[in-house]
Amino acid sequence: MRGFKSLFHPSSIAVVGASTNSAKLGHAIVRSLCALGYRGRVYAVNPKLAGQKLLGCEAYAKVSDIPDELDLAIVSVGAASSIQVLRECAARGVKSAVVLSAGFSESFGDEGRRMELEIRRIAEESGMAVVGPNCQGIVSVSEGIYTFPEIEACGGVGEISAILHSGSLTAALVSIANKRGFYLNKAVSTGNEAASTLNDFLEYFLEDPETKVIALYIEQVRDGRRFMELCKSAGKPIVALKVGRSEAGRLAAKSHTAALAGSIEVWNAVCRQAGVIQASTFEELYDLSMALAAPMQPRGNRVGIVTSPGGPSVIAADMCGELGLAVPRLSRNTVEELRRVLPSYAAVANPVDMTASALEDLSLYRQVLSIVASDGNVDALLVIALLMNHSTIARAIAEAAREIDKPIVVVWMSFFREDDLLEAVKILGERRIPNYFGPERAVKAISSMVQQARYADRKRMLRR
Amino acid sequence: MRGFKSLFHPSSIAVVGASTNSAKLGHAIVRSLCALGYRGRVYAVNPKLAGQKLLGCEAYAKVSDIPDELDLAIVSVGAASSIQVLRECAARGVKSAVVLSAGFSESFGDEGRRMELEIRRIAEESGMAVVGPNCQGIVSVSEGIYTFPEIEACGGVGEISAILHSGSLTAALVSIANKRGFYLNKAVSTGNEAASTLNDFLEYFLEDPETKVIALYIEQVRDGRRFMELCKSAGKPIVALKVGRSEAGRLAAKSHTAALAGSIEVWNAVCRQAGVIQASTFEELYDLSMALAAPMQPRGNRVGIVTSPGGPSVIAADMCGELGLAVPRLSRNTVEELRRVLPSYAAVANPVDMTASALEDLSLYRQVLSIVASDGNVDALLVIALLMNHSTIARAIAEAAREIDKPIVVVWMSFFREDDLLEAVKILGERRIPNYFGPERAVKAISSMVQQARYADRKRMLRR
Repeated sequence: MRGFKSLFHPSSIAVVGASTNSAKLGHAIVRSLCALGYRGRVYAVNPKLAGQKLLGCEAYAKVSDIPDELDLAIVSVGAASSIQVLRECAARGVKSAVVLSAGFSESFGDEGRRMELEIRRIAEESGMAVVGPNCQGIVSVSEGIYTFPEIEACGGVGEISAILHSGSLTAALVSIANKRGFYLNKAVSTGNEAASTLNDFLEYFLEDPETKVIALYIEQVRDGRRFMELCKSAGKPIVALKVGRSEAGRLAAKSHTAALAGSIEVWNAVCRQAGVIQASTFEELYDLSMALAAPMQPRGNRVGIVTSPGGPSVIAADMCGELGLAVPRLSRNTVEELRRVLPSYAAVANPVDMTASALEDLSLYRQVLSIVASDGNVDALLVIALLMNHSTIARAIAEAAREIDKPIVVVWMSFFREDDLLEAVKILGERRIPNYFGPERAVKAISSMVQQARYADRKRMLRR
Repeated sequence: MRGFKSLFHPSSIAVVGASTNSAKLGHAIVRSLCALGYRGRVYAVNPKLAGQKLLGCEAYAKVSDIPDELDLAIVSVGAASSIQVLRECAARGVKSAVVLSAGFSESFGDEGRRMELEIRRIAEESGMAVVGPNCQGIVSVSEGIYTFPEIEACGGVGEISAILHSGSLTAALVSIANKRGFYLNKAVSTGNEAASTLNDFLEYFLEDPETKVIALYIEQVRDGRRFMELCKSAGKPIVALKVGRSEAGRLAAKSHTAALAGSIEVWNAVCRQAGVIQASTFEELYDLSMALAAPMQPRGNRVGIVTSPGGPSVIAADMCGELGLAVPRLSRNTVEELRRVLPSYAAVANPVDMTASALEDLSLYRQVLSIVASDGNVDALLVIALLMNHSTIARAIAEAAREIDKPIVVVWMSFFREDDLLEAVKILGERRIPNYFGPERAVKAISSMVQQARYADRKRMLRR
């Protein structure tokens, strides 16, 4: 595991296959490292550039020419050459490597597998941590490392770390987290897993103090027993999206990362037994990770719904019931207090309908949230915002949340990210208040929080 | 039904309860009518404004003072007063009315129901079409009519018409359609349905030549038998989101529009028998309506997937299999042609992976789509776009689509609507090419197209 420390927190990086051609990946990675805040030492490796500089970095013909200790080599050369480069890295004592090159078992079957075995042998003999091949590498937000072209740096360091069998989904996840303001900590696209596997990263993230929630996109679990043991012992939430629910998906996974996706029935059983939260779509993988990374978690399944628009609150209540969450009656005291601040025609049952008067007086959000939160029958609050004034509402909710010791989950009913809504989403995200587009996604998020609380209880009992 | 023509295509409108106070609904509606392109005659009704003008409209004390024929009265006064206003409208020969006022059976039980019966009596005796009460009224895009505050006019006239038991969801639907460029035709928020019901509007939209697809958000079907007959005989697709899947939802619906939501098992059976496409979330209601309003519909269930990012295509293929869509092998001829235009390491099975070379050469989209579309094994194309260059890709796909006589459905993997992506979405929407955020939603859309084709076949057989 020592190699992983160097992988995510390197003091020096060599980019092998660095290029002056700005359309090449070997160029884009040097550019990303320079532009997105990495403060360690970066070296470019390319025989044609030896003695010159690339984007301000010293260039060398070979890894072995670099007069510095190397924590990480990022390898972007042809498949066959990448093996030779790894040998040089191992000989030079490089601590970790990311092999971006494709053209292994995913394209060339047995011949590709032979090359992957060679990569594994090099990794095992040298102790070097090797990611890939056929991957897009890593993200380490606190270090400013993103081995992806055309990506934006996270606006802050979060507590969600992700392991994905897809480079493009890794990039998509970074992009989602950035816009939503509930940031990532680390991410790794593991590709064909010749040496380091999903299980290895899972073990590392489980012990990583910077990681609070682990998100997984899985095409194949290569050692199911170990995966199960790791998840069972996990002291933090694990959310997973797994493909292979159909034969068409299993075939596509095989062509993508040479994965053998396995049976979905087995997978479902593993999740139940090992306490893994399942996401059903890619967006949900982030949605649920956000919910589980929130500082406030519910102690029970009773949801207080506070709304201004009517229809969405009906959908929310309906889905709560469907997912086993309660929408309890509020106590007499709560109802009396609500009557004092809301108009006479407002519904003060649960859902509590602030009606259009919330439009005229946004302070209602704060008052009503405080009243409902103090009800002993309520474990979590679901707040449905108006279709307008998003950022003002976000600030009012964030203000209210400071005095409330129960989780608040917010629903936007505008599905498009106009500037004001984007700002609102970020305001809540950066305050670590989970917020979603549409009531269904928010209720699903609360339900995952409740499920995780049950998993955590069970795991604590088993550990005793 | 004659009243409905006046409702959606009025030559003259009276806004009763028009106000100079810009925070009031009675003001916002006059403003909407003036600002969003309505070209008929608008009159403001308010005793305090008689003889004056409001936002350029002549104001009168009473409806009966207006020296003009009135097609539509929009009533925004207190619940009790609204009945008196309706009586005046009926006496005056007004052809249709929308009662926005709340405070009926949803809040006051029997007393509210008594008032609703009175509304119904007035409507039946006079032949006036009455929408509401406790609703937010109507949208008629071709007329520039939106009885909603703070809403933007549709950028074009579409073919989707919607009936909703929620005003805020009606407004949200308009907003979604506007941003996605695949526009609405008409919409109505039916509220407590004292007189005109969901079934009445359904019947009207089924015969309306401007409406191609009907979208429904339902809290209660008040006459199940008639609903069933209407759907069974429908010559166009009907997509519905129904609440009442849980007791919590049924209670919330009752407090919202006094609805009795009924059993979900019965509802599911009705949908199967009557050929109604079910949406599982509010966003999906629009997603599927968009798919079914597209000019190209598939003749079978075989999907050709064309991608550049790997992971999303695996998710797409997996979900195809799960929803009963085939991801067939492509013919030898197709594979040979693909080999000629794609790099040697590209996967030319199905999914067809254009790899990162699509980044360097966007004309690949057009070439590859044409090749795959001409394969006899393929009924529909699913195209997964890169994470960047969205609007350029949208144009390339729109260009390719002109020569292709099979449906094309596009997947965006950026989940946030940066300007370039917003533009791309609109380019495709306005060309009526369905496009979605994430592979899951797109596959669901294709699956609804295939399901609708089967429903349509069955209905044709039954009609013979």
